[in-house]
Amino acid sequence: MRVGVFGTGVVGQTLAAKITELGHEVMVGTRDVEAAMARTEPGPAGGQAFSEWAAQHSDVKVGTFAEAAAHGEVLFNATNGQGSIPALEMAGAGNLGGKVLVDVSNPLDFSGGMPPSLFVANTDSLAEQIQRAFPDARVVNSLNTVNANLMVDPGQTAGGEHTVFVSGDDQSAKDEVTRILRDWFGWKHVIDLGDITSARGPEMYIALWLRLWLGLGTSMATIKVVT
Amino acid sequence: MRVGVFGTGVVGQTLAAKITELGHEVMVGTRDVEAAMARTEPGPAGGQAFSEWAAQHSDVKVGTFAEAAAHGEVLFNATNGQGSIPALEMAGAGNLGGKVLVDVSNPLDFSGGMPPSLFVANTDSLAEQIQRAFPDARVVNSLNTVNANLMVDPGQTAGGEHTVFVSGDDQSAKDEVTRILRDWFGWKHVIDLGDITSARGPEMYIALWLRLWLGLGTSMATIKVVT
Repeated sequence: MRVGVFGTGVVGQTLAAKITELGHEVMVGTRDVEAAMARTEPGPAGGQAFSEWAAQHSDVKVGTFAEAAAHGEVLFNATNGQGSIPALEMAGAGNLGGKVLVDVSNPLDFSGGMPPSLFVANTDSLAEQIQRAFPDARVVNSLNTVNANLMVDPGQTAGGEHTVFVSGDDQSAKDEVTRILRDWFGWKHVIDLGDITSARGPEMYIALWLRLWLGLGTSMATIKVVT
Repeated sequence: MRVGVFGTGVVGQTLAAKITELGHEVMVGTRDVEAAMARTEPGPAGGQAFSEWAAQHSDVKVGTFAEAAAHGEVLFNATNGQGSIPALEMAGAGNLGGKVLVDVSNPLDFSGGMPPSLFVANTDSLAEQIQRAFPDARVVNSLNTVNANLMVDPGQTAGGEHTVFVSGDDQSAKDEVTRILRDWFGWKHVIDLGDITSARGPEMYIALWLRLWLGLGTSMATIKVVT
């Protein structure tokens, strides 16, 4: 399958590397390809300097947001939350229309220091903003509750005995993302929370996740839903 | 031990009944004792009509907020979130000073319909508002992530294999609440999230909990933190 991954940070790198390893054709999308390829410092959230990462992953294509969007049959938004809508605008509504867009971003606002707050919450969410801005994209919010390593390899914590969520208005898109989560990444427990407004739940959960990270000293902590 | 429980709804009823059953002297506090004792309808969140409940629990005292606050060595705030600060004002800062105040309330706003939003979130929390309003109370936010039945009997879901949190500025108060959670109610997994600002995490988690309730059809769903 052809997959577009928006974002060159640690989340984009981790998704692109794993999906390529599975045999899919991945293009990473960025604002300015030349600038990204010249980057010799890691991004603010960690990961490798992109030039170094790209050299080590020469089987992953790198293009503009628009090129990655046109390339992908399935798309992942792994840009930072504040840059997500601008990045998707550069990708172009026409390139997003009809496609599954897995939104793994969080609306983090670091302007007040650590831990970050959310720039949208409670009565709206970043996933809803994206769906409203691109009504023809089939947006599914998922994976934003765990760190990049767990996204693609949930077995790294508690043998994979924990939960990931999907939220979206398009049931067939959620079914496809659920299949990707299970078959590509090995997720055992996927809960469908409902329509795109239900993404408020996982996005607001990040406030708890951040405190668990600070309190337990590991970003690999996550939650299993039990009933 | 003498315990004051503010609130006559399902949460106050459940806490008061369980703590009394354990052999402690409980007084439930309410705004207007006569009105509460005359109530023949259940509250909006369920539970029994208070007159009926009180008749069946004649070993539980009922008094004003101030009387319950003066009575208790440990206090539980089980009022609805919007009424919490007014209730605690009626309890009186002098009656709260120096005491452990377990805040189990959530800042739910039902004015926009179901699911409710939060009237404070993200850069503040109800627990912080309470601590700021009553600086001499030793506020510990806890138990607000589960329904009333699980608060006092966590074994009802997954054999008790799930997590509850404590947040507060006073370490000895958190230690005492942790002891209460374990010894009185049987909680196995208690995580100290940090100071009172960390209560934003569990309060904002309620947005996810509400979606799990709607999606899974049970309010007994909860989360286990895994690392």
